Amino acid sequence: MFYHDNKLQYTVRVDTPDPRFARLLQQAIGGVEGEIRVMLQYLFQAWGNRGPTKYRDMLLETGTEEIGHVEMLATAVALNLEGAPASLQEQAATTNPIVGAIMGGMDPRQYLSAGMAALASDANGVPFDGSHVYASGNIAADMYSNVTAEATGRALACRLFELTDDPGMKDMLRFLIARDTMHQQQWLAVIEELGGHKGVLPIPNSFPDSEQVQDVAYDFFATGIEGVEPPAGRFT
Amino acid sequence: MFYHDNKLQYTVRVDTPDPRFARLLQQAIGGVEGEIRVMLQYLFQAWGNRGPTKYRDMLLETGTEEIGHVEMLATAVALNLEGAPASLQEQAATTNPIVGAIMGGMDPRQYLSAGMAALASDANGVPFDGSHVYASGNIAADMYSNVTAEATGRALACRLFELTDDPGMKDMLRFLIARDTMHQQQWLAVIEELGGHKGVLPIPNSFPDSEQVQDVAYDFFATGIEGVEPPAGRFT
Amino acid sequence: MFYHDNKLQYTVRVDTPDPRFARLLQQAIGGVEGEIRVMLQYLFQAWGNRGPTKYRDMLLETGTEEIGHVEMLATAVALNLEGAPASLQEQAATTNPIVGAIMGGMDPRQYLSAGMAALASDANGVPFDGSHVYASGNIAADMYSNVTAEATGRALACRLFELTDDPGMKDMLRFLIARDTMHQQQWLAVIEELGGHKGVLPIPNSFPDSEQVQDVAYDFFATGIEGVEPPAGRFT
Amino acid sequence: MFYHDNKLQYTVRVDTPDPRFARLLQQAIGGVEGEIRVMLQYLFQAWGNRGPTKYRDMLLETGTEEIGHVEMLATAVALNLEGAPASLQEQAATTNPIVGAIMGGMDPRQYLSAGMAALASDANGVPFDGSHVYASGNIAADMYSNVTAEATGRALACRLFELTDDPGMKDMLRFLIARDTMHQQQWLAVIEELGGHKGVLPIPNSFPDSEQVQDVAYDFFATGIEGVEPPAGRFT
Amino acid sequence: MFYHDNKLQYTVRVDTPDPRFARLLQQAIGGVEGEIRVMLQYLFQAWGNRGPTKYRDMLLETGTEEIGHVEMLATAVALNLEGAPASLQEQAATTNPIVGAIMGGMDPRQYLSAGMAALASDANGVPFDGSHVYASGNIAADMYSNVTAEATGRALACRLFELTDDPGMKDMLRFLIARDTMHQQQWLAVIEELGGHKGVLPIPNSFPDSEQVQDVAYDFFATGIEGVEPPAGRFT
Amino acid sequence: MFYHDNKLQYTVRVDTPDPRFARLLQQAIGGVEGEIRVMLQYLFQAWGNRGPTKYRDMLLETGTEEIGHVEMLATAVALNLEGAPASLQEQAATTNPIVGAIMGGMDPRQYLSAGMAALASDANGVPFDGSHVYASGNIAADMYSNVTAEATGRALACRLFELTDDPGMKDMLRFLIARDTMHQQQWLAVIEELGGHKGVLPIPNSFPDSEQVQDVAYDFFATGIEGVEPPAGRFT
Ligand SMILES: [Ca+2]
Ligand SMILES: [Ca+2]
Ligand SMILES: [Ca+2]
Ligand SMILES: [Ca+2]
Ligand SMILES: [Ca+2]
Ligand SMILES: [Ca+2]
Repeated sequence: MFYHDNKLQYTVRVDTPDPRFARLLQQAIGGVEGEIRVMLQYLFQAWGNRGPTKYRDMLLETGTEEIGHVEMLATAVALNLEGAPASLQEQAATTNPIVGAIMGGMDPRQYLSAGMAALASDANGVPFDGSHVYASGNIAADMYSNVTAEATGRALACRLFELTDDPGMKDMLRFLIARDTMHQQQWLAVIEELGGHKGVLPIPNSFPDSEQVQDVAYDFFATGIEGVEPPAGRFT
Repeated sequence: MFYHDNKLQYTVRVDTPDPRFARLLQQAIGGVEGEIRVMLQYLFQAWGNRGPTKYRDMLLETGTEEIGHVEMLATAVALNLEGAPASLQEQAATTNPIVGAIMGGMDPRQYLSAGMAALASDANGVPFDGSHVYASGNIAADMYSNVTAEATGRALACRLFELTDDPGMKDMLRFLIARDTMHQQQWLAVIEELGGHKGVLPIPNSFPDSEQVQDVAYDFFATGIEGVEPPAGRFT
Repeated sequence: MFYHDNKLQYTVRVDTPDPRFARLLQQAIGGVEGEIRVMLQYLFQAWGNRGPTKYRDMLLETGTEEIGHVEMLATAVALNLEGAPASLQEQAATTNPIVGAIMGGMDPRQYLSAGMAALASDANGVPFDGSHVYASGNIAADMYSNVTAEATGRALACRLFELTDDPGMKDMLRFLIARDTMHQQQWLAVIEELGGHKGVLPIPNSFPDSEQVQDVAYDFFATGIEGVEPPAGRFT
Repeated sequence: MFYHDNKLQYTVRVDTPDPRFARLLQQAIGGVEGEIRVMLQYLFQAWGNRGPTKYRDMLLETGTEEIGHVEMLATAVALNLEGAPASLQEQAATTNPIVGAIMGGMDPRQYLSAGMAALASDANGVPFDGSHVYASGNIAADMYSNVTAEATGRALACRLFELTDDPGMKDMLRFLIARDTMHQQQWLAVIEELGGHKGVLPIPNSFPDSEQVQDVAYDFFATGIEGVEPPAGRFT
Repeated sequence: MFYHDNKLQYTVRVDTPDPRFARLLQQAIGGVEGEIRVMLQYLFQAWGNRGPTKYRDMLLETGTEEIGHVEMLATAVALNLEGAPASLQEQAATTNPIVGAIMGGMDPRQYLSAGMAALASDANGVPFDGSHVYASGNIAADMYSNVTAEATGRALACRLFELTDDPGMKDMLRFLIARDTMHQQQWLAVIEELGGHKGVLPIPNSFPDSEQVQDVAYDFFATGIEGVEPPAGRFT
Repeated sequence: MFYHDNKLQYTVRVDTPDPRFARLLQQAIGGVEGEIRVMLQYLFQAWGNRGPTKYRDMLLETGTEEIGHVEMLATAVALNLEGAPASLQEQAATTNPIVGAIMGGMDPRQYLSAGMAALASDANGVPFDGSHVYASGNIAADMYSNVTAEATGRALACRLFELTDDPGMKDMLRFLIARDTMHQQQWLAVIEELGGHKGVLPIPNSFPDSEQVQDVAYDFFATGIEGVEPPAGRFT
């Protein structure tokens, strides 16, 4: 069961509202690397978990934290949409600040559909899609999936960090980036507890080795035609 | 910011697991009338709210409650998937209980993709779609939208109630149906506070009456060709 | 069965074509608050109706009217795409007017996919999605759904009205806004005929009160942790 | 502008309701080969048309006819859902006829979401998707697209014909199949008017031949590696 | 089975990178008229084919060619994203070239989600959707579908050609346009082999004429009300 | 550039066609864990790659291999749809074998839309969705994403293995499962080459540690309210 208070997990401050950045932040809310996805992913993994209680508990702890990240980002979007800055207005050669903001790169639906607020969509306005909630019922597969979600999520947050000069927004992103660092560690720590990468592989490890076509289970297959050298490395 | 404990808001008990019912429950999780939708809808309405604090607070209270409803239903799905009942097995004329369950109407992805757990999808396996998160920035429009969500949600829950004989499932649905009753009242109470239906109409009421083509603003338009009598009623 | 003539329901005139506005109008065509949605919603409600004939007839009358609104808006898009205005061209510092228009905020697919015409998509290019056609089989739920559709639709039309200075476009929107006013009244009038808000609640009212967990059916549940005051109002 | 009367374009009669067939009919309503698609496709082609008036007029005539086909099919779905036939009930070994119907292959959302009526979705419950509304702004491309829609639509209708023994349903399909025959002819007749297949090719024919890499414009490219004989035919 | 080498089918060269054009090219990659669609469409038609081997072989040959077209376009996107041109930077009045490029019309996800590379999406960021892979099991219907895909694909390529001044991009498009010319011929040649348009119609031609309502199979139906003249032409 | 021959990568044989299994196989074709996804994912990662050539080459080799896996599975679907087995027919108490097969759990669109062939969709008929093609531009993030794809893909293949008794299908799956084993190793080997898990973390490692809020970068945050013990483990 869930509870809330009226605080944000970390300060969200916007020094100079920027409706263009409000659009970019949408990727971190409703995008495939975003916070709605990890929130639902960890919660569904917890709710479907049949293994040791501690993993279920851990997933619930962190899934709940992620709801607060959606909250921080939705708040950041609303703050970035407070008025349309003069610079955009001038550039757009129009007297209507919202028209100017849309021409300058704002998501039109943040105004048309939401009256200047965040949407459950990505930076191109594509709605959040529940098929990205990966909860496979295999704890090792889920942990790799979670590492991936946090790795692409952190890459996204670092890119957003580069695209703003706003001190408030940079501060918020420094926090979210740090949490993504922790969460990457956290899911990998579970893999270590489960025996490490070698120990969990191949996933699922319940399938008997003798049942797979063993002589193709550790071979790199080259598909190049003549003249193409297969690459060399540990992976071949 | 959000918190959790390890309790469910109300007991979830399944006396006789039924994988077919596990599929039907998906509609209440990831369907357009489902709990993920109201959870996100109330939270996004709260986070985008620029009006009186009390509505923001109320939306946050109830949005948080709805997370717990997703949790109850996801738990109910997992319990219904515990083993495949003998009856289905026999009916399917197969010795593999999961094959039997799929033939009997189970969602195959609950096994194939989730290893016997809930998905963020509807009863046909269509993933939850964030475009159903209505948060228009207009408090009156949002309240009607919330009444609609609870009305279709309660209709869904009552239909699910009819489709199961399981005492545990019936008990859980009795609770969810009651909460939907309350939530319908709750959103309509806000409309009353705002001046009642007459008071808030037309939505948005900030648009000056004189700007609309006044002589078509209160006329019923018949589109029937000759021989078609327009219906009579208060609405014409 | 359906018929047509070669008139529009109301004049559609564009004084100064604006490809940016052509993009914004897409929300009113293929968006979740748009005219394709209400057209299909009222028609499907009519076709699935098992109640008194007059509601079926009414839904058919208005559903048919909405087809004409899609037509008006699609026409408005085409007119706004006639040539790309000089102002955009200059701003874009390019000699190709379409490149200029796309840089200035035009939907690129209106040219790339449709050769300068309307799409069955929203203002972000997301295709119309049939899951927004709500027809629940419960007349009261459907009426609230219809009020919501007209309320968010009118909010959208009023926002579009603000975003254009074109006298022709403003005139067309004045008409559509007025029709949305009427349609809000119309669906609420049905609720009054059915007994008023108190009379129809809870929806569905066929479910026996005694079957729901009665003591939570009229209680506001607070989910705040210590230090959070639940809001006070009629809704609690 | 559009009008309606209270007749169907052709009788819709169901002798023995079959909820399974109600699911299959959904493909002809909201599927990629279905009637919502052709309805919107012909109307959007008409509304975006900048060529000779007669093609616009023709598209409007037939687009309007297609609305009536959606109506026929939605009516057919509702009739097939009237009660659940005894045979299904018995087969399902359950006393609840709707549970029996769902187990027997009915679309669960026709009951759960629509209260026993048609949805704007396909036979797998996937909602109608506006990206299938092809209106390219090129009349020849659109005519081939329309032929394709009617060819796949007629193939679908013929397959539905095979899957039912109900005399009423067979009769309705005989009519719809005949209309698809006509519509295939109709769109090809436009191509003939435009100069025939040779005359319109390559589409678009406004692009100067000299601008394309002429020596690959009429060559079949084989991508088979050694040992693979390219097929021989008029197409190579 | 499939093979590759490290060459492109035709040179891809970008003289002046243009992130705006990188967005427009997405339509040709992941759009409904794009190369992922034809690649999968021809391959699925081949794999499902039960007719003469030569058509299966031909579909496989050309489906394989199309994979190389996706490759060319994805390469073109990456090259157009190499740095952000000074002109955009200045126009955007910002010192951050990526911010400038996004304001100037770049797809933000090409940076945020892909780190400056192509996505499997269209020009509005809508992901590729497998429902556009038409493979109906009827060879004649499929051939019309393929002609349509190549006709709309060539229209798209010609429009892209108009929207760029880059000599490298124009050269690449000249090649792709030529291949679309050939592929239009190719699919029509199959129809000729099958008996020509008259020979294959109505599709499917396995359905007995006597089973359809013959007297409406060759009639144009007018849906105009009084005052509307039905258009005259070969199609009526 | 790509090439093909007329062989399958491994024998595909179906001893007893089973239309129900044809539906389940769809998950491995067009599902989120399926082969279209990995095919496009590895190819897009290759085409967007700006790092050492060998990783680009490796991705191209394996991406090409995956096209052949889609081919194998599409072939397996077609073979499973050859006729409808007598057992299903009897069970369905119908003389029409396709009706029987659909009642028994076949995907209706495999017949209605594809004439007994594979679709580019998942086991619930949801079309393949390009947003699952993860290619982030960060090689380490992409490798974790690829491990996840192969881990969930192998879990899916093992589950399919359990659900069939057909010796031919079991044999094909033994091969695909073995390839998934190899591919898991392969992507992890790249991570080892890049410095191992510790070496690549946090992803992206180009973001300066000093810029993140360092004191929350390695802390487990508990969100439980009083009475909830945070779980203990390496991850906290
Ligand atoms: Ca987070
Ligand atoms: Ca609820
Ligand atoms: Ca309207
Ligand atoms: Ca039709
Ligand atoms: Ca091509
Ligand atoms: Ca594979």
